[in-house]
Amino acid sequence: MAMKKKPVTGMKDILPREMEIRDYAIGLIKETYKTFGFTSVETPAVEHIENLSSNQGGENEKLIFKVMKRGDKLASAAQKLVETGNASDEGTSLDAGTLADCGLRYDLTLPLSRYYSNNANDLPSPFKALQMGNVWRADRPQRGRYRQFMQCDIDILGEPAILAEIELILATTTLLGKLEFKNFTIRINDRRILKAMAAYSGFAEEDYDTVFIILDKMDKIGLDGVKEELLKEGYAEDKVEKYLGLYAKLYKEEDGDSANNSEANSINDIKYIQSELGDFLDAEVSNNLQTIITSVEGAKAADFRMKFDPTLVRGMSYYTGPIFEISMDEYGGSVGGGGRYDEMIGKFTGQSTPAVGFSIGFERIVMLLLENDFQVPGTGSKKAYLIEKNMPADKMQKIMTLAKEERDKGVIVNVSVMKKNKKFQKEKMQEEGYTEFVEFFADRDF
Amino acid sequence: MAMKKKPVTGMKDILPREMEIRDYAIGLIKETYKTFGFTSVETPAVEHIENLSSNQGGENEKLIFKVMKRGDKLASAAQKLVETGNASDEGTSLDAGTLADCGLRYDLTLPLSRYYSNNANDLPSPFKALQMGNVWRADRPQRGRYRQFMQCDIDILGEPAILAEIELILATTTLLGKLEFKNFTIRINDRRILKAMAAYSGFAEEDYDTVFIILDKMDKIGLDGVKEELLKEGYAEDKVEKYLGLYAKLYKEEDGDSANNSEANSINDIKYIQSELGDFLDAEVSNNLQTIITSVEGAKAADFRMKFDPTLVRGMSYYTGPIFEISMDEYGGSVGGGGRYDEMIGKFTGQSTPAVGFSIGFERIVMLLLENDFQVPGTGSKKAYLIEKNMPADKMQKIMTLAKEERDKGVIVNVSVMKKNKKFQKEKMQEEGYTEFVEFFADRDF
Repeated sequence: MAMKKKPVTGMKDILPREMEIRDYAIGLIKETYKTFGFTSVETPAVEHIENLSSNQGGENEKLIFKVMKRGDKLASAAQKLVETGNASDEGTSLDAGTLADCGLRYDLTLPLSRYYSNNANDLPSPFKALQMGNVWRADRPQRGRYRQFMQCDIDILGEPAILAEIELILATTTLLGKLEFKNFTIRINDRRILKAMAAYSGFAEEDYDTVFIILDKMDKIGLDGVKEELLKEGYAEDKVEKYLGLYAKLYKEEDGDSANNSEANSINDIKYIQSELGDFLDAEVSNNLQTIITSVEGAKAADFRMKFDPTLVRGMSYYTGPIFEISMDEYGGSVGGGGRYDEMIGKFTGQSTPAVGFSIGFERIVMLLLENDFQVPGTGSKKAYLIEKNMPADKMQKIMTLAKEERDKGVIVNVSVMKKNKKFQKEKMQEEGYTEFVEFFADRDF
Repeated sequence: MAMKKKPVTGMKDILPREMEIRDYAIGLIKETYKTFGFTSVETPAVEHIENLSSNQGGENEKLIFKVMKRGDKLASAAQKLVETGNASDEGTSLDAGTLADCGLRYDLTLPLSRYYSNNANDLPSPFKALQMGNVWRADRPQRGRYRQFMQCDIDILGEPAILAEIELILATTTLLGKLEFKNFTIRINDRRILKAMAAYSGFAEEDYDTVFIILDKMDKIGLDGVKEELLKEGYAEDKVEKYLGLYAKLYKEEDGDSANNSEANSINDIKYIQSELGDFLDAEVSNNLQTIITSVEGAKAADFRMKFDPTLVRGMSYYTGPIFEISMDEYGGSVGGGGRYDEMIGKFTGQSTPAVGFSIGFERIVMLLLENDFQVPGTGSKKAYLIEKNMPADKMQKIMTLAKEERDKGVIVNVSVMKKNKKFQKEKMQEEGYTEFVEFFADRDF
């Protein structure tokens, strides 16, 4: 039977050149985060369907790859399906409760929460976790976006203080600096500021999500666009005016001083918001945000800036405190982000556990490194041994011993059988970075 | 809703202590194999159900985790199922052709074959591939065996000469030596010797698989046990006698000299088999096997021995030439194995491509390292900063700068908020390997 040569739709085979960069980045990530006291953890790729469908995953829950039950359980679920004839419901009633009992994880946050609640007794408190692993989303395939991709998350569980946020931002930006990224921005906001601004303007709590989805478009459609959409949604003009008035003031300031997105500017903006919102916003929230910005700016190990951005929303509804996102000029969108999610672990344990996470967009970062023709540093010298076919055993042994001695010193030695067109063979190997060639013939001494 | 805290049946959460060893082993594997000229590749975890069900996977095909179709395709497949009422067929008719369109890979060999046939034009020839990745098998859960586990394979594609076998065995054993494994055995045989011995004894070709399954039990049930089972299977006594006569001669020799499982012993055994089989066995096969053993023995970088074992079968029917397996005294069974499979890639491309692979049992090796309390070398010094809660921004900045300076030098610095029971906190951190503690107070200078 002829077999299918292409990978499944939306997933990709990774070629050696990209793997070299991935392996290097993975090594650097582990090394860097380790110096911040993070330890690696791993959860299975497959999770309970009930956990995946628990409304912690937002839009991603629609994109789950579901794994079928097996054996008798599958047979009886299928039998039941046939008997009830319940398949016409657009296929949905087939899934979670019936034919599938698990699915591929769509992020690393939900599995980490389960992991922590399962293993907390064996883990330090606070627990600083590093996770690198693939996640799967049955998204519409498009250029540069795949249905299997690597995520790289650091999380601090059990630490209520903003020390956690500061450490996460410093660790992530130190890593990006080592990968030679420059001049990027960490935008920061707090879910409680978002909510206070909406409350102050008179929006009802049940409208927040809709309002924030529109607010999130600010950088694309501008103040006027946001205003138009809010009004179209049916919100009263006075609320909308009051709400956007807060933003207008900040933007106006920036217009007059657009090049100066300095630390001072961010601090001023936070102070202004706090003074306007008054009792709507707990002063500790805005003070903490200022401390995060000041501490990171003062101790940073890379060329970036912190920027308070009151339009930053971050999609996931599980965030409860500070939220942040990495913006890079070279890449239109975000290349990573995170925030505090103090309530998710309680969903498993019934006992609230503070938690903050920062995820970098590993695939986007690899893509940028590839596009910039990033050279992996410290690759040892590459040597090719070309040996004649049918080498007798004693000479083969000698060649292997010579190779061993060089490999022990870290030299990459590729032993290949000499081809008829040796010139072409060498040219091809030179393209792979082999610079030295040693030839061995069966009838000559060496 | 209460969520499930345990991982799905048969899969496991990996705790920091094990992850430390895994991360170290993964780093060492990449570093070691790289010096042999191997380059990393990666294939998606999800494969076409048609490829997974193509009879290349032996028993493992029964253990596939199947992934359901999505959206309209799922709905129409389910509708069809309901209409035909075809679920009672023990659930099997539901699967491949109907509700599932892909599945989780159960090994790395089949995906590599697909990868090579898809990307051969962009790859060197021969191509030396290193793959590390998880595979999934819906096996009956049991102690120490999981349904998700990491495999680590090296393969040489496009090289017909036994240089490929020699390089694979040397690379694998060099790695095991670096992981401090000693006194293990690489058992080696050739599928063509297995077949020639059966043919010489008068077995029909269609009986080979059954005969080999019984032969494979030799180390458990001995010569007499194998004889009994072959007779019970209905094979003629003269064939069985002739067949086991070949083995008896080898075992008898060994009895007289049981401590001396030397290279010379293996070479003698191969010569004996060749002389007995005569025209049934191409002399090149036995000569090549001798050259492999001599070359590896002469250039080996670890404490192990090569041993010709004519009872070695290896389950997979795709093997076509030399086959090998790692036996370790510390661990009852095999901790890795491989062989030549020259015909598999042709199933994709229609064009035969020689291939040899060697897979190490990553999970078993990690288990052995854990049991032996393996200490990961070269872990940097670990320092804990304990800081008072509510540190003002300027002091927080100073602490982070101090931490940065130490982290830049490779020191692991874990900054934590001081707890009420500081003594207990320090004891806990000492258990994690933190040896130095520095305390910072908000009202003191530092």
